Amino acid sequence: MTAHPLRLPTGPVDLDTVPSGATPGFDGGKRKAKAALYAMGDDLADLQERLFAEGRATGSHRRVLLVLQGMDTSGKGGVLKHTVGLVDPQGVRITSFKAPTEEELAHDFLWRVRRGVPGPGYVGVFDRSHYEDVLIGRVDALADAEELERRYDAINEFERELVDDGCVVLKCMLHISKDTQKERLLRRLDRPDKYWKYNPGDLSARAKWDAYREAYAIALERTNTDHAPWFVVPSDHKWFRNLAVGQLLLAALRGMDLGWPPADFDVDEERARLLAEDASA
Amino acid sequence: MTAHPLRLPTGPVDLDTVPSGATPGFDGGKRKAKAALYAMGDDLADLQERLFAEGRATGSHRRVLLVLQGMDTSGKGGVLKHTVGLVDPQGVRITSFKAPTEEELAHDFLWRVRRGVPGPGYVGVFDRSHYEDVLIGRVDALADAEELERRYDAINEFERELVDDGCVVLKCMLHISKDTQKERLLRRLDRPDKYWKYNPGDLSARAKWDAYREAYAIALERTNTDHAPWFVVPSDHKWFRNLAVGQLLLAALRGMDLGWPPADFDVDEERARLLAEDASA
Repeated sequence: MTAHPLRLPTGPVDLDTVPSGATPGFDGGKRKAKAALYAMGDDLADLQERLFAEGRATGSHRRVLLVLQGMDTSGKGGVLKHTVGLVDPQGVRITSFKAPTEEELAHDFLWRVRRGVPGPGYVGVFDRSHYEDVLIGRVDALADAEELERRYDAINEFERELVDDGCVVLKCMLHISKDTQKERLLRRLDRPDKYWKYNPGDLSARAKWDAYREAYAIALERTNTDHAPWFVVPSDHKWFRNLAVGQLLLAALRGMDLGWPPADFDVDEERARLLAEDASA
Repeated sequence: MTAHPLRLPTGPVDLDTVPSGATPGFDGGKRKAKAALYAMGDDLADLQERLFAEGRATGSHRRVLLVLQGMDTSGKGGVLKHTVGLVDPQGVRITSFKAPTEEELAHDFLWRVRRGVPGPGYVGVFDRSHYEDVLIGRVDALADAEELERRYDAINEFERELVDDGCVVLKCMLHISKDTQKERLLRRLDRPDKYWKYNPGDLSARAKWDAYREAYAIALERTNTDHAPWFVVPSDHKWFRNLAVGQLLLAALRGMDLGWPPADFDVDEERARLLAEDASA
């Protein structure tokens, strides 16, 4: 997938040069994008079921981990609902990372993350992730420079382990402009059915927009590896964001060359056992 | 919901008198049932989002636990895919109970079950459940009579606790005939994309069909409480099963009288803070 238009090139990152309102690789609008996403549903569901079947019926450890990172209102929840919602929930494991608990803080930052890693056959989704520990960790100086350095390396090593163990790691940064966030926050204040999504604390993070932008740039550059590449998803248009993540997930599943697991029993013999019941009944 | 046609009446239970191929309360066929289920999607999703919002934005502990029990091929997976799949996966927590691990066996049978209880705002689904411990537990004599008695009581007490803590407990027994199971098992043997669902061990449980029927009858009778009633869902028709569980879930959510959580902040003040940025920028 290295040739994918959303694949972040290696080297220094300047997110301000990436247009968050663009729709790279797609020439339609909202209606066409929604139709394209919906049309993808059957293929996504079919491949996800094959992956799930493999996990259940064989000793394979293959699975997918989709990491969703982005500022407030960038649409992590929307991707979960509209894109991840296209596949059988039985094969999906979503982990939402909030501010760490006391117990979590008592362990290394990857401790709680390891507990959220999907099992064989699953599509796991991280709604926020271990990247918080190098984002808010850096912006709010919760970790010093040395510890941050250690974390970038620890993340790369952790993701290397996952990939070596059969996990496809797909990292999406949902990229929005500061103006888009403002519009979306105002919208939450205009609609009583959206109040619950609003938190006055969100404005504190917003006030540090540039510092977050820098923290993202550094984190993306340091962890944009060949085994676990970053994709920057322009997310000012919700419909493009949902479609783009769907396409990335579909491409990842297609790349796994998933078949149906062969029978590990004698099909004819089992059929005979079932049919023999009539005689013995 | 006590007047619901699928609500199991109190008293002794004889599942053989409940027609597994019936479609109580529904007078259409497959096409009409699928349309009815699909049409329910928006209401289900809306109410589930209100529940999720309540869990996020308030201190409420309200949530729903849907327990799915049934013999192999009764369609627990189908309900997860087609019915539970109608709502935002972000607000759903599915727990599948397999044969207990060594660690699980070292604890009381409810230990692993408690860990699977959904958090505030979630719709939790148990794919098999604590009822296995009084079903296979009884059929295979993994527990003696005294221990089984203790478990029925422990289950009722556990579910009482859940209900008292704001959890609506919805227990569905997916009821199929022995012939339907045979057809479905044969179908799994006829289709290479279904082999993964087949396990030769399934025939051992099938051979104990009558013992399971009896174990279900006793368990249902002993745990059919007012706080956590059982619903027997005729499941020979997959389309009726999916629709019926959807209707039960929808009725449960409607019964919770879910609104949108009010703002716990000053909406106008927050709007002013956001708009003031322009002046200060």
